[in-house]
Amino acid sequence: MIIKHPGPANPAPPAPEFPWPGNTRTALFAAFDVDTESVWLGGDRNNEQRLVTLSHGGYEARVGVPKILEVLARHQVSATFFVTGWSIEAYPAMCEAILDAGHEIAHHGYLHLRPDTADTQTLHDEMDRGLEAMNTVLGLTPTGYRAPWGESTIELLELLQNRGIRYSSSWRDDIRPYRHVLPSGAGPIEIPVNASFDDWTYGLTHRSSPRALFGREHVLSIWREEFDQTREWGGVTTMVMHPQVTGRPMRINILDQFLAHVRQFDDVWIARGDQIAGHFEACETRAS
Amino acid sequence: MIIKHPGPANPAPPAPEFPWPGNTRTALFAAFDVDTESVWLGGDRNNEQRLVTLSHGGYEARVGVPKILEVLARHQVSATFFVTGWSIEAYPAMCEAILDAGHEIAHHGYLHLRPDTADTQTLHDEMDRGLEAMNTVLGLTPTGYRAPWGESTIELLELLQNRGIRYSSSWRDDIRPYRHVLPSGAGPIEIPVNASFDDWTYGLTHRSSPRALFGREHVLSIWREEFDQTREWGGVTTMVMHPQVTGRPMRINILDQFLAHVRQFDDVWIARGDQIAGHFEACETRAS
Amino acid sequence: MIIKHPGPANPAPPAPEFPWPGNTRTALFAAFDVDTESVWLGGDRNNEQRLVTLSHGGYEARVGVPKILEVLARHQVSATFFVTGWSIEAYPAMCEAILDAGHEIAHHGYLHLRPDTADTQTLHDEMDRGLEAMNTVLGLTPTGYRAPWGESTIELLELLQNRGIRYSSSWRDDIRPYRHVLPSGAGPIEIPVNASFDDWTYGLTHRSSPRALFGREHVLSIWREEFDQTREWGGVTTMVMHPQVTGRPMRINILDQFLAHVRQFDDVWIARGDQIAGHFEACETRAS
Amino acid sequence: MIIKHPGPANPAPPAPEFPWPGNTRTALFAAFDVDTESVWLGGDRNNEQRLVTLSHGGYEARVGVPKILEVLARHQVSATFFVTGWSIEAYPAMCEAILDAGHEIAHHGYLHLRPDTADTQTLHDEMDRGLEAMNTVLGLTPTGYRAPWGESTIELLELLQNRGIRYSSSWRDDIRPYRHVLPSGAGPIEIPVNASFDDWTYGLTHRSSPRALFGREHVLSIWREEFDQTREWGGVTTMVMHPQVTGRPMRINILDQFLAHVRQFDDVWIARGDQIAGHFEACETRAS
Repeated sequence: MIIKHPGPANPAPPAPEFPWPGNTRTALFAAFDVDTESVWLGGDRNNEQRLVTLSHGGYEARVGVPKILEVLARHQVSATFFVTGWSIEAYPAMCEAILDAGHEIAHHGYLHLRPDTADTQTLHDEMDRGLEAMNTVLGLTPTGYRAPWGESTIELLELLQNRGIRYSSSWRDDIRPYRHVLPSGAGPIEIPVNASFDDWTYGLTHRSSPRALFGREHVLSIWREEFDQTREWGGVTTMVMHPQVTGRPMRINILDQFLAHVRQFDDVWIARGDQIAGHFEACETRAS
Repeated sequence: MIIKHPGPANPAPPAPEFPWPGNTRTALFAAFDVDTESVWLGGDRNNEQRLVTLSHGGYEARVGVPKILEVLARHQVSATFFVTGWSIEAYPAMCEAILDAGHEIAHHGYLHLRPDTADTQTLHDEMDRGLEAMNTVLGLTPTGYRAPWGESTIELLELLQNRGIRYSSSWRDDIRPYRHVLPSGAGPIEIPVNASFDDWTYGLTHRSSPRALFGREHVLSIWREEFDQTREWGGVTTMVMHPQVTGRPMRINILDQFLAHVRQFDDVWIARGDQIAGHFEACETRAS
Repeated sequence: MIIKHPGPANPAPPAPEFPWPGNTRTALFAAFDVDTESVWLGGDRNNEQRLVTLSHGGYEARVGVPKILEVLARHQVSATFFVTGWSIEAYPAMCEAILDAGHEIAHHGYLHLRPDTADTQTLHDEMDRGLEAMNTVLGLTPTGYRAPWGESTIELLELLQNRGIRYSSSWRDDIRPYRHVLPSGAGPIEIPVNASFDDWTYGLTHRSSPRALFGREHVLSIWREEFDQTREWGGVTTMVMHPQVTGRPMRINILDQFLAHVRQFDDVWIARGDQIAGHFEACETRAS
Repeated sequence: MIIKHPGPANPAPPAPEFPWPGNTRTALFAAFDVDTESVWLGGDRNNEQRLVTLSHGGYEARVGVPKILEVLARHQVSATFFVTGWSIEAYPAMCEAILDAGHEIAHHGYLHLRPDTADTQTLHDEMDRGLEAMNTVLGLTPTGYRAPWGESTIELLELLQNRGIRYSSSWRDDIRPYRHVLPSGAGPIEIPVNASFDDWTYGLTHRSSPRALFGREHVLSIWREEFDQTREWGGVTTMVMHPQVTGRPMRINILDQFLAHVRQFDDVWIARGDQIAGHFEACETRAS
């Protein structure tokens, strides 16, 4: 019991001080969670008949993702899209467009169910139906995984390791990548997130929620300063964006201006998750 | 079951690329939801004796709507007012003033009851008592409908179609109008809303709610930029305003300054919902 | 039942267009609710042992009220303090200081219990123990009343009338004073509040609440613009301030700068509630 | 029963007007609450398996505290860190680094359990296991205490007195230190907090919370003005910072710029809690 044996919840040692590639001193991991309707269906079964609530998700395929792909292309940014299996099956054309533009598609569960309250069977279903959707519809095997609702457990970490997932991007306890330590040995690489980049926090509300909406300067000032200081510290800025939020008219310009800010510096490695994981593995090999 | 057969919750194809009338490239749909006391009575039966809570609604007839009509007249804007049947019966003179100024009155339920938790009888009552109030008190048959609490269901869409309602304005999944697809065939036109224009989000709170109040520049910057980018994309900016919020002293200037911003451009079609629906139907006819 | 007989919840006709005194065109009603510990004790009985929660209330007598009296004196503003009976009994010296500075003390319940969920006995106790505290401790009979939690009922209005209270200041449905209409005839005068002036909304939170804190410019811009537009419309700006919020170091300057803004204009009647009620009565007499 | 005998919840007389040391006119008490995982474990037992939620706490030892120590050193500020016993046992090296830099470590409970809902046994366990951790791991006996969740009770105050704790820093009812009055006589000194300096309020949220994130200027303007006015009034500005919030990239600059602001003035006594308590005791002795 924890009170009897206090100790870090995360047994991994501090992130190693590996250099970033070439002349870069920091990394930007432009990452998007594509949940479409699944985030609403998985969060509350009663949403199944709430067509307007579900229409937040439908916006992604109709408008949000295409508009974001345009912005990424304008700034020549390669990104990672964590897409739920449900979304892949429901919107294959949207996913093909993401892949065609050179972006990575990674695992984000199947119906976006919370991992922390799921039983073992559900946890396995979420994992394996997601893998199956990726393989059947898109013919790919994912390198990375981000937990739905941003929550994870030891059981889930072991499942990732068991299924050959090479990196996770959910933890909030560091500013540099590190490798998880499991009871059974080494686990996947963690590319920790910066929660200030969760656009949902600033940009999606409804009449029954007291959450507030914030404008461009409010969000941009936080994002610019998070990035600037992370660059100063030599860390990775990991984004947690949602096309059903950032794909809206006003919000797409926040992303656009943030990427323009990042593009001013020539010492930033803008990389997909699979590239960051690959770099980490190479550094580990060199260091051992 | 959704998990077994994933697919878009909205079976309608992407919005068609119909041109806007004349030399315009975008549309502004200035829409107001007039709920008066009904939004409070319908939301919580215990509010029946809470006279201060109800007085938020009473503000609309006493002050809010008259002040908004003045602003609309100053900018020569024709708008649509979605008025609950209860409000029409309680405040006929307020409704006459809206109509006399050339605005549209459309359907917004009767007692502003949530459609998604209503049984079939209640859903029909809300629809038919609203229609009856509009006919008896104002002698009109509505062209459009906006769902109370912004929520809708397939049963409600079919009811709209069955009652001859030509357009809905509740969905959040597109930036251009489209036509709903029902199991039984074509449904009403959807003029999707921009939820950032729900003034309630920024302007109405009380001691028991953690919702925050925001000032003019905060709201205006969001509204201006939503409009500007929607104009860029050739979409429609659909507002979701409430006279019990925007009719307050400070808030009316946000509306005033937003309309002044829109009026700077000569390529904006400012139109009521019935006009937008009529234009869509004409384009459909031409296209078929 | 309301659905069967819709109609305004407030049967009072629109506020009459009485002129403000002399050359003034608008009124400022600087009103403070002094709740001390009673707002916490009355709101949740478990707070009785939560000494830190209660210490929000204790701040009023120790620091908040004295500092606010200094600001009011600097701007030569006479104000109304709605003080709960509990606070009068607990802090008689604080109340004497308010009266000595020429301000009005009015009724604000006894233990700040919600009127809308109180039974008749509790409603009467709140009224009569408040009156008794005012009479016994301060030797005064109040002219005005503001409802705890800002809520009121028809039963409470009738009780006010029965106890000889000449004005209420709780409703939110107008920008000018009016007289309530009771089933039994004329009721007290209403000096309606402007809820944007409830400082609690911007300035008091705790770790278990998601309410946000806002700084000077955020609040001041809202208050200045509410006042400016109300002045334009010829209404009364009624404040809803709390010394346990506005008496804090940073927040007192918001009040200070707001009063400086108001003091720029020479057409503002800054008046206590009893003065506004007296003016209304005089206008009524002249008009009849 | 309170209704029968109203009176101040805090029986202590107003804070005495003791001078600050030397030529100073105000004090800054830079105080940090180090909760690591214990705030999450103690707040909700189900968090035990939520590894991402717990990773907020893990950030303190891996990144947050080291970065904050750098900022404090840059501004030559000695601070007090209120550390839970659980955190001391889990992260002894982090605590040694705090002490080595000349800062104070004070008591903050063991598992960060709420004092107001704890039974007597739990209250004693929280106190004594915290003392034991401090003694066993760090070899120190604490001078001060800050209540977990910022709440306190009369039973807890008496326990502090009984255990020889010389100061508390939790109350919100004054701007200067004072001595608590217990039924049994004199209690510990109180160095009251300024709740606007709780960084959690502005800087930590998650998808299931409607709490908003605020940027540098928003927070800094509040902090600067709280400090400036407290300086004007001759009080103490007591901070309530958390390394898992302020240790984040963007947020560390808010602390940095606030300390730079304070450092502009040469009449500010920047002191640890034990120093402020010692000064108060010396003044008391002189005054008696």
